[in-house]
Amino acid sequence: MVRTKDQFLKDVANRKREIYFRGRRLSTVLEDEDLKYAAYHTARLFDYPKRTYFDESLNLEISKYYKIPRSSHDLLERHLLIYDNTIFGYGLFNISQAIGSDALFALLIVSKMIDKKYGTDYYSRVWRYYQDVVRGDLTIAVAQTDVKGHRKKRPFEQPDPDLYLRVVETKSNGIVVRGAKAHTTHSVAVDEIIVLPTRAMSPNDKNYAVAFAIPVDTPGLKLIVRETGRVSRTYIGRKEGVEPETLTVFDDVFVPWDRVFMYGEYDYAGLLAITFATYHRFTAVSYRAALANLYLGAAYKMAEANGVLDAKHIRDDILEIVIYKEIQRMGALAAAMYPLIQEGIAIPNPVYTNIAKLYSNSKFSDVLKAVVDVAGGIIATFPTYEDLQNEITRKYVSKYMQAAIDGERRIKLIELLRDLVVIGGGWYLTTMMHAEGSMEASKLELFRSYDYKEALELVERLLEE
Amino acid sequence: MVRTKDQFLKDVANRKREIYFRGRRLSTVLEDEDLKYAAYHTARLFDYPKRTYFDESLNLEISKYYKIPRSSHDLLERHLLIYDNTIFGYGLFNISQAIGSDALFALLIVSKMIDKKYGTDYYSRVWRYYQDVVRGDLTIAVAQTDVKGHRKKRPFEQPDPDLYLRVVETKSNGIVVRGAKAHTTHSVAVDEIIVLPTRAMSPNDKNYAVAFAIPVDTPGLKLIVRETGRVSRTYIGRKEGVEPETLTVFDDVFVPWDRVFMYGEYDYAGLLAITFATYHRFTAVSYRAALANLYLGAAYKMAEANGVLDAKHIRDDILEIVIYKEIQRMGALAAAMYPLIQEGIAIPNPVYTNIAKLYSNSKFSDVLKAVVDVAGGIIATFPTYEDLQNEITRKYVSKYMQAAIDGERRIKLIELLRDLVVIGGGWYLTTMMHAEGSMEASKLELFRSYDYKEALELVERLLEE
Amino acid sequence: MVRTKDQFLKDVANRKREIYFRGRRLSTVLEDEDLKYAAYHTARLFDYPKRTYFDESLNLEISKYYKIPRSSHDLLERHLLIYDNTIFGYGLFNISQAIGSDALFALLIVSKMIDKKYGTDYYSRVWRYYQDVVRGDLTIAVAQTDVKGHRKKRPFEQPDPDLYLRVVETKSNGIVVRGAKAHTTHSVAVDEIIVLPTRAMSPNDKNYAVAFAIPVDTPGLKLIVRETGRVSRTYIGRKEGVEPETLTVFDDVFVPWDRVFMYGEYDYAGLLAITFATYHRFTAVSYRAALANLYLGAAYKMAEANGVLDAKHIRDDILEIVIYKEIQRMGALAAAMYPLIQEGIAIPNPVYTNIAKLYSNSKFSDVLKAVVDVAGGIIATFPTYEDLQNEITRKYVSKYMQAAIDGERRIKLIELLRDLVVIGGGWYLTTMMHAEGSMEASKLELFRSYDYKEALELVERLLEE
Amino acid sequence: MVRTKDQFLKDVANRKREIYFRGRRLSTVLEDEDLKYAAYHTARLFDYPKRTYFDESLNLEISKYYKIPRSSHDLLERHLLIYDNTIFGYGLFNISQAIGSDALFALLIVSKMIDKKYGTDYYSRVWRYYQDVVRGDLTIAVAQTDVKGHRKKRPFEQPDPDLYLRVVETKSNGIVVRGAKAHTTHSVAVDEIIVLPTRAMSPNDKNYAVAFAIPVDTPGLKLIVRETGRVSRTYIGRKEGVEPETLTVFDDVFVPWDRVFMYGEYDYAGLLAITFATYHRFTAVSYRAALANLYLGAAYKMAEANGVLDAKHIRDDILEIVIYKEIQRMGALAAAMYPLIQEGIAIPNPVYTNIAKLYSNSKFSDVLKAVVDVAGGIIATFPTYEDLQNEITRKYVSKYMQAAIDGERRIKLIELLRDLVVIGGGWYLTTMMHAEGSMEASKLELFRSYDYKEALELVERLLEE
Repeated sequence: MVRTKDQFLKDVANRKREIYFRGRRLSTVLEDEDLKYAAYHTARLFDYPKRTYFDESLNLEISKYYKIPRSSHDLLERHLLIYDNTIFGYGLFNISQAIGSDALFALLIVSKMIDKKYGTDYYSRVWRYYQDVVRGDLTIAVAQTDVKGHRKKRPFEQPDPDLYLRVVETKSNGIVVRGAKAHTTHSVAVDEIIVLPTRAMSPNDKNYAVAFAIPVDTPGLKLIVRETGRVSRTYIGRKEGVEPETLTVFDDVFVPWDRVFMYGEYDYAGLLAITFATYHRFTAVSYRAALANLYLGAAYKMAEANGVLDAKHIRDDILEIVIYKEIQRMGALAAAMYPLIQEGIAIPNPVYTNIAKLYSNSKFSDVLKAVVDVAGGIIATFPTYEDLQNEITRKYVSKYMQAAIDGERRIKLIELLRDLVVIGGGWYLTTMMHAEGSMEASKLELFRSYDYKEALELVERLLEE
Repeated sequence: MVRTKDQFLKDVANRKREIYFRGRRLSTVLEDEDLKYAAYHTARLFDYPKRTYFDESLNLEISKYYKIPRSSHDLLERHLLIYDNTIFGYGLFNISQAIGSDALFALLIVSKMIDKKYGTDYYSRVWRYYQDVVRGDLTIAVAQTDVKGHRKKRPFEQPDPDLYLRVVETKSNGIVVRGAKAHTTHSVAVDEIIVLPTRAMSPNDKNYAVAFAIPVDTPGLKLIVRETGRVSRTYIGRKEGVEPETLTVFDDVFVPWDRVFMYGEYDYAGLLAITFATYHRFTAVSYRAALANLYLGAAYKMAEANGVLDAKHIRDDILEIVIYKEIQRMGALAAAMYPLIQEGIAIPNPVYTNIAKLYSNSKFSDVLKAVVDVAGGIIATFPTYEDLQNEITRKYVSKYMQAAIDGERRIKLIELLRDLVVIGGGWYLTTMMHAEGSMEASKLELFRSYDYKEALELVERLLEE
Repeated sequence: MVRTKDQFLKDVANRKREIYFRGRRLSTVLEDEDLKYAAYHTARLFDYPKRTYFDESLNLEISKYYKIPRSSHDLLERHLLIYDNTIFGYGLFNISQAIGSDALFALLIVSKMIDKKYGTDYYSRVWRYYQDVVRGDLTIAVAQTDVKGHRKKRPFEQPDPDLYLRVVETKSNGIVVRGAKAHTTHSVAVDEIIVLPTRAMSPNDKNYAVAFAIPVDTPGLKLIVRETGRVSRTYIGRKEGVEPETLTVFDDVFVPWDRVFMYGEYDYAGLLAITFATYHRFTAVSYRAALANLYLGAAYKMAEANGVLDAKHIRDDILEIVIYKEIQRMGALAAAMYPLIQEGIAIPNPVYTNIAKLYSNSKFSDVLKAVVDVAGGIIATFPTYEDLQNEITRKYVSKYMQAAIDGERRIKLIELLRDLVVIGGGWYLTTMMHAEGSMEASKLELFRSYDYKEALELVERLLEE
Repeated sequence: MVRTKDQFLKDVANRKREIYFRGRRLSTVLEDEDLKYAAYHTARLFDYPKRTYFDESLNLEISKYYKIPRSSHDLLERHLLIYDNTIFGYGLFNISQAIGSDALFALLIVSKMIDKKYGTDYYSRVWRYYQDVVRGDLTIAVAQTDVKGHRKKRPFEQPDPDLYLRVVETKSNGIVVRGAKAHTTHSVAVDEIIVLPTRAMSPNDKNYAVAFAIPVDTPGLKLIVRETGRVSRTYIGRKEGVEPETLTVFDDVFVPWDRVFMYGEYDYAGLLAITFATYHRFTAVSYRAALANLYLGAAYKMAEANGVLDAKHIRDDILEIVIYKEIQRMGALAAAMYPLIQEGIAIPNPVYTNIAKLYSNSKFSDVLKAVVDVAGGIIATFPTYEDLQNEITRKYVSKYMQAAIDGERRIKLIELLRDLVVIGGGWYLTTMMHAEGSMEASKLELFRSYDYKEALELVERLLEE
């Protein structure tokens, strides 16, 4: 079944969950004037014109997001899908089926490995779940990052044992879990949540080595939403909605066995975490390259509007953004070109993925800086939203905002840049630096996974007499 | 007369002005629940314990801000005053007598030069005005940056002649001016506005070469305020208030002759602009060094709270902020140590001032990046203000925010960092990059004013046979 | 004919040219103890095991370098060839057939365009020349960069008209040219020189719009060689030789018509220059990625040798080099993946090529910095080459150079790093920043050729009501 | 006694030492055509016109270098002395009395502290030695950095116990030491060597906690010199000489008790090391600011010579160097302004000193990059020294090097830049990054010594309700 926008909106209304937002408890996002834009955002996914294809092996029309990548070509297609859907979404990523498929691919690979070692049957559970997801055209959030407590202590060493999500009870029909995951994107407006371990685990961390999937209306699951701002006032928000994160509390949540994908196999926790991360960082550089167009287009137009497109420092600023965008694309293309194949599934090349992701995280502050340099101080000192609705004040603003283009048009550019930088910049910077893994996470993985052999052999050959 | 906080608040209530904020017209900031914090901010200045001194030449107790610097020592004292007052103000600059004195010093110098060349009497006007200000313990905003229209055209070349402020009528008793100045900081909550030219002018720009001072309740003066956010919710805001900028419209404003300090002497417009800028950049690096403590302290405490103070990349982040802070101080100290003396008044050394300022503008994005790296994604995805007031949700948040310190304490740190980065970061970045002059402005002045002689002679000596 | 190493060495001995080196005039490089390594370097090309293939259309076994790229796949193969041959060459690029083919591809494309516009027959001349080159398995240098005189003046505006190479006489059988080209790599040890214009030309520059090819033993051609250092003492030099540049003086050199490929078509000079540059920058990022292995391998081994491979700042240094290497590869892969096809020939994508090249130029100083940080000061203060040959001193050095590995082995690493950084670093930095085009050259082309449409349309869609 | 240049040269000839250079054993540098320039360099110090002053307390005319700093003013004078003497020396630091005084000041302070704790009499030994030095107007090298072996092991943990210098025998009249110090600058051409510990020591490292002074002609002391290049060919070398480093081997060297300044007081080894380092880094930023003029002047002149001084990217390059120079000066000025006073002696402020030094180390690669960008590739591909002596080739070079200035003049600039970058750049980069302490050394000390109190209190005040 391929869902439509309307079906999704009906489903989201029916699937009651426990949401906390601005001091109120909600059972759906539709009850709040700002938060409802989260549902509209998911709904937009179903309008994306090129979203589905006919899958031969399943004999079914399904979402392209769920196409299991088997080759370089499939990964390239996936990159283009995510990039293009983000452009369709005015530069805003639509995570609703992207992150879930990232998690499912990792689970399909790692569950098979665990089964081989331990004689378990996780793979068949994952495969059945995958089929349910695909057939239901479901949307999914992934809860991975634990709240983590003292960062230098392992899960089992924390004074409060709940600071990493853990199994607190094992029953005949399933398990009970407790803990909290931070930064769960869009859990308020999707159908399911997949839970993955956040790091490598030691034998003592066995209870923390757990992976599973649950519907968002599972009892005990509490979604505490971040401040989203006045969504309907921003240029992107009012067209494309919003993707809010939650602090996701698992208050003794029951998970039936057929939804449990890892249970104590601590020695695979790290592999599952990093395999998902690799897919998801590939997704990240794909959508972020598209998102960069917002900053690029806005800066370029502002430079034109101010009459300074030929100023050297302005050109350098614009090139900074061009390069930011394209190095991410270069990384995605190279990562697709040289995949790892594990259990018959193609994983984006971790070296190129992590280099592109590291560039993405570490240079976004320079993108902001470049945009601010072009935009000028006016984006910070511009009159309020309401004063622009007021005829008297708008008249003055319109007159005095004239430059190389008329004032009315330039007002819009200033407002867009205010959205992107002054109102949203701090939030974007933080999420660009931490979402899908921090700089240190990419560095660690890069140093670990890089193959130094070629370089070392070259030097060895040189030093031989 | 030395004013008290209460006197100031009474004065601000009495001095009606034409303010536009969030679609409403106000006659004082006290009428608005958020904007009133602007008046509280100015009022705080009068509580600063070390604000005044007895001036021998005036035979009067006056604000230290208005002490005319005559020496290296005076400039050093001025640096320490601004730095210390900013620390007193929880890291928030108090512009209320700082910028006005920067402008007055520049006017005292340049007016004398103009008088010498043109036989005018500007200096005595400035001096009388200075005395009024000092005796009244007045607070002042400075409106310098014109809205500027097409950036590659000079004032007189703009299609709409009002895009730089200009004299539209000359009367026997004074002049009438029209135009708009952007980014006028704190005009809504001070007593006076000094208006200065924004750039060097050509003979054709004569009508634009104008400087003057007016009370903020002068008819025709319209103050359109930027969005200030929910001041009372931020940690700094509820203690120290806010300094909002306005788009300041001069709708045919009359200025009497004794308040006119430049009138057509286009060949001194650039000098006046840059002399003020040099003082004001010295002020800037002084307060910004103090402001950096906010980021430094918050990052340091968060690193401790997370248990990662000994991680190398965290230490590098913290050092980034330390260096940011101290290079500004180094610049201020050096600028005070080697002043220029003009007309008997000490100007901070422009080379050191501009280097420190350029560093300040261009590296603030790296400070933000460092802070975000330390703080983690949680500052972007943290529950809302209201959910923290709600007992149920707060309980969960408090439990799951535990780390190397208890959850309640860590919540405060997260909220503070959210203020500084997620909510305020984009605004701070923009103002840090543009306030008191952009990077290009500092570069231009630095390249122009630098004395290459020493380096060129060294190379000459080397190349001689 | 596929040449062998020995045949080449015989040919180079027979083809007398006019070389100036260290104050002496030579007719072949073989006459000089240091310069002879230039011939050995070219000769090494013929030992590269995978150098040739059977070309169906020519019905001939030929060098892979001369394979005309028709597709993405061909460009990818070309990238891998250059990369792999550089690894074979101990990290030292072998330019001998690479640059010539870059020039030939550009000439094949642009000559056809000129012919279409002007009805000339350049393409058939180029094609015949190409066949001669391929059949003779010739090696080629390219002389492009003019000495340029006053950089702000066009060729025809220079006080001395010879500061760009120009036609000084036109004869029935050919042309006579005068001028000088800087930085002609390896002209002393190849068979032919192709001469190309260095920039876009105006109608007044007609005499400067000239392209041609000549054998290196053409009368009037003078090759003034740079200092090469003591080649035989460096680790790379004694294995792989050297590629010296010359100031190449054309002292009224005659070129027959069949070797003239542009003669006055000034409106195509820029296109020819930039098309060659694009190919050559693609070549550059391909060999430079391989060269980076030298720095990477040496730094990694030194970190091991010092026992500091797990120090965080050392890891950051090593990652700096990894990223430097791989961003160049990413760029080459993406440039091959999305080529331009002109006249049936595939040109590497200019955006990805220029981004990778710009990264390569602008970040090499950071690579040096990273390597120096790892290597320590010892590479600068290490005893002399001769003291290491001396038994007494070597004994001390060997004892005191012990670290996590034995002293003898560490001595070699120190010496290699001394080669790469202390002796060679300044030269490498300069050539990495200027060879195949400076940073500004890549920026100009990138800003010019980038397609902003996607970004601008995205912003347009957002701003629409 | 104030020595003259000639006296010094006589002394250096008489004081035979054990030097190894280019495979030969020398007893003075004067025996070698290149190395003799080391003695000329020291000799130049005695020509510096403002070198001495009359010291009231000693009742003697002495070198200003040996003036014990008691105040901010004294430190400022010291900064200016070093800066100015470096300018006198064509940008080349003259270490001959600078580093020795840095060590003596540290010894005067720390010896007093040790005496206080342990009842020893080191201070009086240091004081007598200081008097001898001052009265003899002696020149001194300092050997601090041990060769260090495995960097993660402490001195006593090294497999070979000699990898840090240590006491191997204690006699009634003195001690015998063994080991090697790396990077000892100018030991071949001064009178004395002071030896200091290189790091903090543990109780097990007691034998390594040793400090002393010896004449350079002490038996067992072996000086193995680095490659100096062809000194007489470089512009600076032929005017100002050279400062070569040695690997300094202590082959069971005897030191009499009155020259021993630390003997087993391991708990003061770190303090002595860092106190010396602070003085010496202050010296470093003082001479390096002067040295930067070489790069600044040469780049500026080359930009003029090429006619591109008004190009924006060239101006940015030049400003990069200006800022490099002036941030070092700012740091020195601030460090002098706020000294620590210990045992009555003024120590430069460690925070400002280390920030300036860290900037100096970490940004020199950017200075090189800027200079290379301005200079162009020609500095790497320029004809050899000998070809410039050859009339025929020089004629061509002179013609074709014409630009906005004549060719002969531009040749000199190119050659100078070749000295500074192509020939010397790798060496300079390495020493600028490691001399007087690496970047990590400055970071460690900065993080450790920084007073976070102000920032932490500010944040505490904010977070209080």
